[in-house]
Amino acid sequence: MEIDVDKASINKISELDALFKPRSIAIIGASTKELSIGNVIIKNLLYYGYTGSIYPINPKEPEVRGLKAYPTIFDVPEEIDLAHVIIPSKFVPQIIEDCGKKGIKAVIINSAGFSEMGEEGMALQNAFLAKAKEYGVRIFGPNCQGIINTDPALKAYCDFTFTFPEPGGISIAALSGGVGAFIMQSLFDLNIGMRMYASNGNACDVSIPEVIRYYGEDEGTKAIILYTEGFADPRDFMETAKIVARKKPILAMKAGRTEEGAKAAASHTGSLAGADIATELIFEKTGILAFRDEEDMCKAAMVFATQPIPKGNRVGIITNTGGPAVIATDELVSAGLQIPALSDRAKNILKETMLPEATISNPIDVVATGGGQHFRSAMEVLLNEDQIDSIYINFVSAPFTDTDEVARQIVEVNKLKRKPIVCNFMTNMSLERFQVTAKILQDGGVPCYPFPTAAAKALGALYKYHKLKEREIGLPVVFDDVDQIQAAAIISEAKSSGKEFLTAAQCYYLLSLYGIPVPSWRISNDVSTSISAAYEIGYPVAIKADSETLVHKSDLGGVAINLKNDDEVRNAVIGMKNKFNPPDLKFLVQKFLPGGKELIAGINAERELGHLIMFGMGGIYVEALKDVNFKIVPITEVEAGEMITGIRMSKLLDGLRGEKPIDKNKVIEILLRLSQLIQDNPDIKEMDLNPVIAFENAAYVVDARIKI
Amino acid sequence: MEIDVDKASINKISELDALFKPRSIAIIGASTKELSIGNVIIKNLLYYGYTGSIYPINPKEPEVRGLKAYPTIFDVPEEIDLAHVIIPSKFVPQIIEDCGKKGIKAVIINSAGFSEMGEEGMALQNAFLAKAKEYGVRIFGPNCQGIINTDPALKAYCDFTFTFPEPGGISIAALSGGVGAFIMQSLFDLNIGMRMYASNGNACDVSIPEVIRYYGEDEGTKAIILYTEGFADPRDFMETAKIVARKKPILAMKAGRTEEGAKAAASHTGSLAGADIATELIFEKTGILAFRDEEDMCKAAMVFATQPIPKGNRVGIITNTGGPAVIATDELVSAGLQIPALSDRAKNILKETMLPEATISNPIDVVATGGGQHFRSAMEVLLNEDQIDSIYINFVSAPFTDTDEVARQIVEVNKLKRKPIVCNFMTNMSLERFQVTAKILQDGGVPCYPFPTAAAKALGALYKYHKLKEREIGLPVVFDDVDQIQAAAIISEAKSSGKEFLTAAQCYYLLSLYGIPVPSWRISNDVSTSISAAYEIGYPVAIKADSETLVHKSDLGGVAINLKNDDEVRNAVIGMKNKFNPPDLKFLVQKFLPGGKELIAGINAERELGHLIMFGMGGIYVEALKDVNFKIVPITEVEAGEMITGIRMSKLLDGLRGEKPIDKNKVIEILLRLSQLIQDNPDIKEMDLNPVIAFENAAYVVDARIKI
Repeated sequence: MEIDVDKASINKISELDALFKPRSIAIIGASTKELSIGNVIIKNLLYYGYTGSIYPINPKEPEVRGLKAYPTIFDVPEEIDLAHVIIPSKFVPQIIEDCGKKGIKAVIINSAGFSEMGEEGMALQNAFLAKAKEYGVRIFGPNCQGIINTDPALKAYCDFTFTFPEPGGISIAALSGGVGAFIMQSLFDLNIGMRMYASNGNACDVSIPEVIRYYGEDEGTKAIILYTEGFADPRDFMETAKIVARKKPILAMKAGRTEEGAKAAASHTGSLAGADIATELIFEKTGILAFRDEEDMCKAAMVFATQPIPKGNRVGIITNTGGPAVIATDELVSAGLQIPALSDRAKNILKETMLPEATISNPIDVVATGGGQHFRSAMEVLLNEDQIDSIYINFVSAPFTDTDEVARQIVEVNKLKRKPIVCNFMTNMSLERFQVTAKILQDGGVPCYPFPTAAAKALGALYKYHKLKEREIGLPVVFDDVDQIQAAAIISEAKSSGKEFLTAAQCYYLLSLYGIPVPSWRISNDVSTSISAAYEIGYPVAIKADSETLVHKSDLGGVAINLKNDDEVRNAVIGMKNKFNPPDLKFLVQKFLPGGKELIAGINAERELGHLIMFGMGGIYVEALKDVNFKIVPITEVEAGEMITGIRMSKLLDGLRGEKPIDKNKVIEILLRLSQLIQDNPDIKEMDLNPVIAFENAAYVVDARIKI
Repeated sequence: MEIDVDKASINKISELDALFKPRSIAIIGASTKELSIGNVIIKNLLYYGYTGSIYPINPKEPEVRGLKAYPTIFDVPEEIDLAHVIIPSKFVPQIIEDCGKKGIKAVIINSAGFSEMGEEGMALQNAFLAKAKEYGVRIFGPNCQGIINTDPALKAYCDFTFTFPEPGGISIAALSGGVGAFIMQSLFDLNIGMRMYASNGNACDVSIPEVIRYYGEDEGTKAIILYTEGFADPRDFMETAKIVARKKPILAMKAGRTEEGAKAAASHTGSLAGADIATELIFEKTGILAFRDEEDMCKAAMVFATQPIPKGNRVGIITNTGGPAVIATDELVSAGLQIPALSDRAKNILKETMLPEATISNPIDVVATGGGQHFRSAMEVLLNEDQIDSIYINFVSAPFTDTDEVARQIVEVNKLKRKPIVCNFMTNMSLERFQVTAKILQDGGVPCYPFPTAAAKALGALYKYHKLKEREIGLPVVFDDVDQIQAAAIISEAKSSGKEFLTAAQCYYLLSLYGIPVPSWRISNDVSTSISAAYEIGYPVAIKADSETLVHKSDLGGVAINLKNDDEVRNAVIGMKNKFNPPDLKFLVQKFLPGGKELIAGINAERELGHLIMFGMGGIYVEALKDVNFKIVPITEVEAGEMITGIRMSKLLDGLRGEKPIDKNKVIEILLRLSQLIQDNPDIKEMDLNPVIAFENAAYVVDARIKI
């Protein structure tokens, strides 16, 4: 399957070259009117220095912004790689056909008035898409900004925005143009160079996953920033992200994480915002660095653009002022980093090289009067410390020191790229003197932040990426002792009989076929068959009323537990017979297992994504604490283990106050077999295994509800 | 007590006027050397335009920076209000004496070399402090930056830093000069005016609480920013903050919240960093707005400087681009704000006034082509909506709109100060055109942020302050059915006998004296007295070995519960007699109460602050989840209620799955009585009431350990 994706992506990449690396661009709807989109795009291409040919298309004007204009694209004597379409929506289907005939390979439709405008717009969108497919034209948009490629050999600014980025290593993909634009602006303000930019609005053809794949293959792209409000095809995105995130850091933010936010998202784009949990799980599963604050994301981009990835979590701090080191330490430690002690060797060197007032420990306080050589020595010491993985610097521009020299020393060490460096540079940028210092740091590629917490957060993100890269979840186990054919038969039989829920017998049988332990059970019809069943199983037993119509049997009094003898079985069966009277009423007689820890597991179908698997503490904990967590099916053994350790009350499973711990491996196996079951039988919509009871050396699914 | 504090603060304020409003300043240690502190301070005073007299003191130079210098302060013919001291530490005690003789009322000691440098420095500090007390001189510092007063009539820049703030309403108090300086710089960068600044280093005399009181009385101070790494006198701070926070917002950050951060703090200042929990509780109790990120705090200051406090949590959003509204909605909702639907009246107006493409709902999307009149109409509609308390604006500077006009309209509405407004202004500030727009917004006092999350966070902080102001915790209840004299006698008796822990009998008796319910109990010596005790109390009973030496009796087998008859009592007593053999061994026979919810309560002495009271879920929950919370003693009824609803598993107390709820009022009463007990008996160091068992209509302390 992955091979297919790769093949597909290779094909699509060559198509997308016309979009991202056009040798010539037609602007269909070019306008002489200042500030109109058909004018601004040409202005931007010229201003940014596009190296290809620009062909304004306008039936009335001889030229636009000094360039010769053509009445139609057919009048352009040369080949055209890419066209901007900025004409009323009703004319777009015809124009796409024309583009196809002219051999144009990619079209950016800036015009609005399509799927975001209801049925009529949707019909127009379908109409031009049909033409595009017919002629093999790739569509970017509609209702979008466009793309930017900062490659100095190309300089393609196919967009009507107003930020003109310097070339660099960060590429941006954003569904929302508004957010994409301010992310680009933010990188610009932070002096972070950009590689490519894409904001594809309604995204009817070229998709975000395709763009991410393209960035993944692009050598100039060192890291990717993604902004989304949901995924049209989450599976496609996941498969793509899994491959690309292995090669390059993907920094992502998904807005619409609150119910209200999702509502706001749905009302402004054509895309459907999914439940946020699924997005978070996709980010986690594919190794994407997730952010909740777009400013943090942009600031983190600065370290990804300039710094190597640390090999571990141990930070050496250099400071020339006390308080900011305290603040930085708080944030670094919160992000999982450590501030280890220095070796004696390091301390001895520092005693020689630092000012007498300096603090020789970690943080190293070179004090405000410390100069370039003091910073340099401290940095060298940290570079040579084996137990230090990265360097954090607080640098306040003390007026009585040669701040330029300090900056030059930091730059020298930064150039070595031996360990990542971040700098909290605290200064007054309105003073020319310190602008010079800042410029030295900036030109030297030192990521500088004006606040200690911001610098520490950026380093924290870099470390988090290290952890994501280190995390090896492995491949899903495949159990071969399962009976796939019988299982499929149960489900298709239930489906063909029009049932929504499996019966108890079907549930337990299905679980057994996948090797998921259930307590011994029999189905009985009345008192006498129930008693014989109890004898076969052995007392104590539980009895559950079993009927398609009794979904919440426990709440209704359809469950009797810990029955120790024939009388108790008789009373339970008679009681239920009096209470319930569906024609299909049967009884499930089940071995009763006293003690153990009550857990819960489940499955939920999640639209296009597939299924989510859930695990948590059962009983009142589910209600009172919602102490559960989710993963995307299929899960691996590592993931199943993470599900168990990931709940807040995980410690309860380790045995407290002399209690015996549960056998976690048995629970892991249930989760893995459940994952396989659901992969083989994707028609299942929901499963509630509640409770799963775990003991010191076993675990059983004691009750199950399966919706198909 | 509060009256005393107020009186004291009034006295101190007049003293502090010499510090914050000096009519004349001597610089002892004035220097002709550029970049030296003794030169920079004079340069800063001159540059900033200090309106008083400056007297450089230098025995060798006739003038410094063009000002006549005097060999000693005694040579100055005029009165001196304030002196800077910038001479080696060993000369400082003599100079302070001279200052006293000259009648100088306040001295800023910039020099270092005192308490932060060990014993020798501490001796010097004590020496000059003795002189200061003798002559009534107030000391600011030592080892500090100084103060700034931006009052246009004064312009006192008594500091060697390099940021020259515009006048405004925010005053800053910071122990750490490094952090204080970059907070001041950050306000400057954000174009937020400042009122006063104080960074007092070692803080040997004038304290942070005193400065806060002074700011509280200062009419020009609208809001206060505080940075600290711990409190020398937390009780003093708390009493001060309680009074000042009622009048003015205090935005505060305490660094050293992680163990590592606290360590870094302790190594760089003379102040002791307390356990972070205590600081958080002080902030909560006094109504201080706490921040964990100094950048968020500075950005929040912008809304506090310009906007009214909202009356509730309902926000109206106006946007001219979709995505940022989604991001803003996420953050606003996370901060507890709501985005309510608009009234039909509002919608009808908007249908008339908006562009056809606009979205008529909340968020109101005026679309990118929307102009000044569209923003204006949307704002007016929100001003007139009763169910809207504040206005959030996303304003991207679309190149094809008259952005200046939009800005002017926002400013017009902002001037009305009817409801708070925040603006996420997304633009390219390197373009002159948009600099003009930004200037209009800034001059109009509109708080602008370049990111939607940042703008939303600032509004969230404003709303949080509204909630803090609304929160009325009331006064502590005083129960008059307690026997204070007997209780004091128990403790003093135990103390005088040199004991560290009270015996079980003392514990239960003490609790009873304060009306805290305990199950009926007797103390017995052997089997027969235990059996008689059981008869008096009634079966079932619990028996606990009682000896001063048995602190963790439960773990050692010194507790037997649910004893139903004489035989079981006999076996329990004999078993314990065989196991333990301390000379003082007795037995506590106690009514056994089956069922109920296991809770925990406790008391902990917290250095200078007094005592903390703790409440939480008992049993395995304490170990597995640490589901407890703390408050500072004394607590009020509201606070006791918050302690119960504040634990994560609070829902378990409401009765789940047919369980009966506990009587929370009974638990509240226990906490209140406990608070009173500890206030009356502050010698108690620790109390563990574990478990407290709560039932449907009662609650009892079942086991207690009290350390004195």
